[in-house]
Amino acid sequence: MSTPYRAALEHTIQCCRRRPIAIDAVKQRPVKQRTRQFSKTQRRWVSDGSRPPTPPGMPGPSKVVAPKTRVAVGVVFLSALIYSMATGDRPPPPSADPSQQPPPRSGLQLDSPSIAERDNLSKRESGISATSPMRLRMEAFIKENQQDIVRTLETLDGTPFQIDKWDRPNGGGGISCVLQDGNVFEKAGVNTSVVYGTLPRAAISQMRVNHKALDPDVESLEFFAAGLSLVLHPVNPMAPTVHLNYRYFETANKDGSTNAWWFGGGTDLTPSYLFDEDVIHFHRGIKEACDAHDKDYYARFKKWCDEYFYVKHRNETRGVGGIFFDDLDDTEKDQESLFAFIQGCLGAFLPSYLPIIQKRKEMPYTEKEKQWQQLRRGRYVEFNLVHDRGTAFGLNTPGARIESILMSLPLTARWQYQHEPEKGSREERLVNVLKKPVEWL
Amino acid sequence: MSTPYRAALEHTIQCCRRRPIAIDAVKQRPVKQRTRQFSKTQRRWVSDGSRPPTPPGMPGPSKVVAPKTRVAVGVVFLSALIYSMATGDRPPPPSADPSQQPPPRSGLQLDSPSIAERDNLSKRESGISATSPMRLRMEAFIKENQQDIVRTLETLDGTPFQIDKWDRPNGGGGISCVLQDGNVFEKAGVNTSVVYGTLPRAAISQMRVNHKALDPDVESLEFFAAGLSLVLHPVNPMAPTVHLNYRYFETANKDGSTNAWWFGGGTDLTPSYLFDEDVIHFHRGIKEACDAHDKDYYARFKKWCDEYFYVKHRNETRGVGGIFFDDLDDTEKDQESLFAFIQGCLGAFLPSYLPIIQKRKEMPYTEKEKQWQQLRRGRYVEFNLVHDRGTAFGLNTPGARIESILMSLPLTARWQYQHEPEKGSREERLVNVLKKPVEWL
Repeated sequence: MSTPYRAALEHTIQCCRRRPIAIDAVKQRPVKQRTRQFSKTQRRWVSDGSRPPTPPGMPGPSKVVAPKTRVAVGVVFLSALIYSMATGDRPPPPSADPSQQPPPRSGLQLDSPSIAERDNLSKRESGISATSPMRLRMEAFIKENQQDIVRTLETLDGTPFQIDKWDRPNGGGGISCVLQDGNVFEKAGVNTSVVYGTLPRAAISQMRVNHKALDPDVESLEFFAAGLSLVLHPVNPMAPTVHLNYRYFETANKDGSTNAWWFGGGTDLTPSYLFDEDVIHFHRGIKEACDAHDKDYYARFKKWCDEYFYVKHRNETRGVGGIFFDDLDDTEKDQESLFAFIQGCLGAFLPSYLPIIQKRKEMPYTEKEKQWQQLRRGRYVEFNLVHDRGTAFGLNTPGARIESILMSLPLTARWQYQHEPEKGSREERLVNVLKKPVEWL
Repeated sequence: MSTPYRAALEHTIQCCRRRPIAIDAVKQRPVKQRTRQFSKTQRRWVSDGSRPPTPPGMPGPSKVVAPKTRVAVGVVFLSALIYSMATGDRPPPPSADPSQQPPPRSGLQLDSPSIAERDNLSKRESGISATSPMRLRMEAFIKENQQDIVRTLETLDGTPFQIDKWDRPNGGGGISCVLQDGNVFEKAGVNTSVVYGTLPRAAISQMRVNHKALDPDVESLEFFAAGLSLVLHPVNPMAPTVHLNYRYFETANKDGSTNAWWFGGGTDLTPSYLFDEDVIHFHRGIKEACDAHDKDYYARFKKWCDEYFYVKHRNETRGVGGIFFDDLDDTEKDQESLFAFIQGCLGAFLPSYLPIIQKRKEMPYTEKEKQWQQLRRGRYVEFNLVHDRGTAFGLNTPGARIESILMSLPLTARWQYQHEPEKGSREERLVNVLKKPVEWL
């Protein structure tokens, strides 16, 4: 990426980055920045809309503030979101000089309310329903799913997740849930992130390549981004690593109405040992979720996934694929249909992965098989640190929450010089499949 | 880096990349591509100029071919070399379109001999002496030092290195020596690489920023690059990781005479636990080597090292530094003086590191201390895969020998979500030092 464009994007990110003391968007009260465990009270606060008890010594919440307005926010997936949607190898537009950009907009300093303020007001006055703006519906949807997934995985593993939350002053926040050194999972991370921010002109010009609804003549645009991201690295080498990410992005007109919007995401499986039945089960679950919305989706997005998760320097894919897509907007389908598709995909996750982990988590394995898993984990690290566009951009973003970005890395990994699988071994078969993606269904 | 310029550089690299069947530059005979162990015979072949016995069934060598002409070659450090010297964040020149570049020059297809052919002839006719071209002296120097270092480390560890060699058809080659799972070293790599190739006009234009001797009007230039690179990751968490790399680069005029040339390199220490006396000993050894040639060098190159090995996304340096420099050419000092400086630096390596590893290799340590080392190894991986320009460029170079580039990664590494050292602990002290580089002397 060229320097002026990078600077412009970094400027945007900086406007959105977490401050040392987190205050929520409607200035209700400081929000606790970190909790070691997701207590029952906190869980309720996040997902079911009921109000947590007021901590001793703290003022009670305003009568009209729904709990969700206070949910903490971070920059966790902002980088991946913006990067994947705003960049490429295209040259920067002539107006990409960040020094020519207007100062960042703070929702609290402007005459007209920011979309964060509008959303907070809307939540206070009407709560969240099927007629709420997609921003609020997506936020509620990913947080509910985060909680369901975290609870299910906690039950499976018998180990609690560590929960960390943040607020951002101008609205939005993040919740990172991480389980480490568990019985089933070596490391499991389930993150949500909601971000309100401002796109400079340079970023708008870039995004127009895929989204013509973006006005090329404005100096800046408010945006909203929300996503859920998940990576599970099991202990047992017979059980595959899985990754998932679904996200929504929107820009706003001056009057707060929606300008452009799109969905992106996907899920993919990374086994160390290949059980064809597992891969077929995983792909079948995804395909069913896709087919319910469009018969072409699975084939299109399976191919896109194989292309995205390709480790060029190893000439192999990261794993056995799944689906990947981006920029799904009204040129693809209407917003309701696409949201229903995203809901279907995320809803298909637990049924497509749980039977696999249940079957594999207690299989016997040798020290040699564990080492092979560790070598494959090394390859996972290579993809994430070298090729993954979102990770790279996040790491190069000043003020990003590095621990949340790197949550996707395994607990342990191994690099062995010139390790080659034995001829005819299961390890060799996996590598052969990674070198030539298979049509599993 | 912009696309046209990247493409131009990749084009260059491709011209130089290893072919499946390696034949040496003077077409004597195929050279064995891989040996599991560095036998005494092979060692002699590499470094002392005496001839190895002819393997049964192989034709005897030509009477006039000195053994060194047959030494194998790879692309291992080409990427780092070219990248560090040719790139930056500067915009590409107008002539950077790789499609406008002439086809790569093959030494064997041209009327006038390539510098690889000239060098082979020179070695055959006169051997290598103090009056030989710097190319041949640097090649002999790094190979002798590689052998000395490998022998010393083998003795220290009690484990033999695995030796891999390659040839490149147009001249040059590589030797990778790797020790894995040893008694003292978890992983130790000592590589040499010698490359003859052709720089396209775009790369020449870039290099001219630092080297005005380069002719901006030619379409391409032959170049030579040679380097030694070393990374040692000890088993014991009390013993520090060390990295070293010294290299020489040269471009040739049409008549084979030297056009531009420069040296680069450095060495740095990465402890998991800080023993001030070790760091002071290491820096003192380097400073003495520097002072013998220029009283300003240590201070200048120590600062450069702290800046280069900075892990931006963690806001800390990779380790406790050492020296780093690049582009040292005749605007700095004459070639003999700089070669003497490089010799002094490389000569200082074993005396500056051996006493440290001797003292630490058998110290008792706890499981927790081993885990901290593994976390620090994770940070090492992050620097190498995310920030190191040479590694990144190498990984993005089609046909590069990935195993040699990634030899620098530790055998094992760990990423623990939100691990924070205890207040007042030794681990915390290390992190504090990494956040604010210390003047050790």
